[in-house]
Amino acid sequence: MPDTRQRIVEASAELIRNQGYAATGVKQIVAAARAPFGSLYHFFPGGKEELAAEAIGLSGALYLELLPAVFDPVPDLGAAVRAFFSGAAEHLRATDYADACPIATVALEVSSTSEPLRRACATVFDSWIDAGVERLVARGLPEAKARELVVGVIAALEGAFVLCRALRSTEALTVAEELVVGAVEAALASGGD
Amino acid sequence: MPDTRQRIVEASAELIRNQGYAATGVKQIVAAARAPFGSLYHFFPGGKEELAAEAIGLSGALYLELLPAVFDPVPDLGAAVRAFFSGAAEHLRATDYADACPIATVALEVSSTSEPLRRACATVFDSWIDAGVERLVARGLPEAKARELVVGVIAALEGAFVLCRALRSTEALTVAEELVVGAVEAALASGGD
Repeated sequence: MPDTRQRIVEASAELIRNQGYAATGVKQIVAAARAPFGSLYHFFPGGKEELAAEAIGLSGALYLELLPAVFDPVPDLGAAVRAFFSGAAEHLRATDYADACPIATVALEVSSTSEPLRRACATVFDSWIDAGVERLVARGLPEAKARELVVGVIAALEGAFVLCRALRSTEALTVAEELVVGAVEAALASGGD
Repeated sequence: MPDTRQRIVEASAELIRNQGYAATGVKQIVAAARAPFGSLYHFFPGGKEELAAEAIGLSGALYLELLPAVFDPVPDLGAAVRAFFSGAAEHLRATDYADACPIATVALEVSSTSEPLRRACATVFDSWIDAGVERLVARGLPEAKARELVVGVIAALEGAFVLCRALRSTEALTVAEELVVGAVEAALASGGD
């Protein structure tokens, strides 16, 4: 069993992923973490905002670790993108449309109200973009084109999650998959020009 | 000056658009609406949830009214989509990255926690999709292809908003614009096959 501090961060990350930042109360966090109430402020003197910033970073790092597992074994980049979107759709159905992006909800909630949390979200998105660009450049695409594709893939994925969760349907992920695979294949065929 | 009930709904719609549902308190709503506290429960016996459902519907209807103004005067559909994304990027910069989609934040917050609010968001997304499909079908695209394009445009737009707000950059909207304009033009060129 991980230590108390770690349990608090992990419980926060899960609650924030499912219901967002504002709806997640400190009482709910310590209950989910099976931690004494005072321990939250002991480990995080800045309270919920400081804790959430760390939880956002943890979620971002965990998802970043998925990238090599999904992309590196598949030589065909279009097929890897397809597998990623299809896997996301399957997981969404399996979790009753609850488990999509771990930070999109909080990103929208805080972008105009908490600069520390906006920065935490921005750092995660930047890390995902950088990791994606690195992979596409390694496959021979120029950096600018690689960045355009990765930003497009993440945007299409995030927006599809919004529609899928609200409409309780994976249609938008299927559509987004076609949209981005088309762009990836066109870029590879033209060598990124 | 609109009546008290209308002011409460409009104030709620604006607060929810900027900071989401959970962060918006009833005290904040009545203050923004310059309404007596009791009036909220007088008009909305179901409290914040009932009020938010109506505010979501109002926001959705207002944005739906923008569609004819943006799309109908422009004969070239690709150009209309470009104008729409560029306009969204300009507006995002002008509002310091605050004013994007009026319902995406609440959609992500409530999709797994409030079925009445999820349904309110789903009704809005469905109305946007239907209005877009109607326009594309009127321009000669088969319905299935029209729906695919509209869902793709909304997904790319919503996801770009997430990235733009968190990263305080309009890059993702520019990328999303290229992605969807390419798909729209390819569909028109092939007659939607």
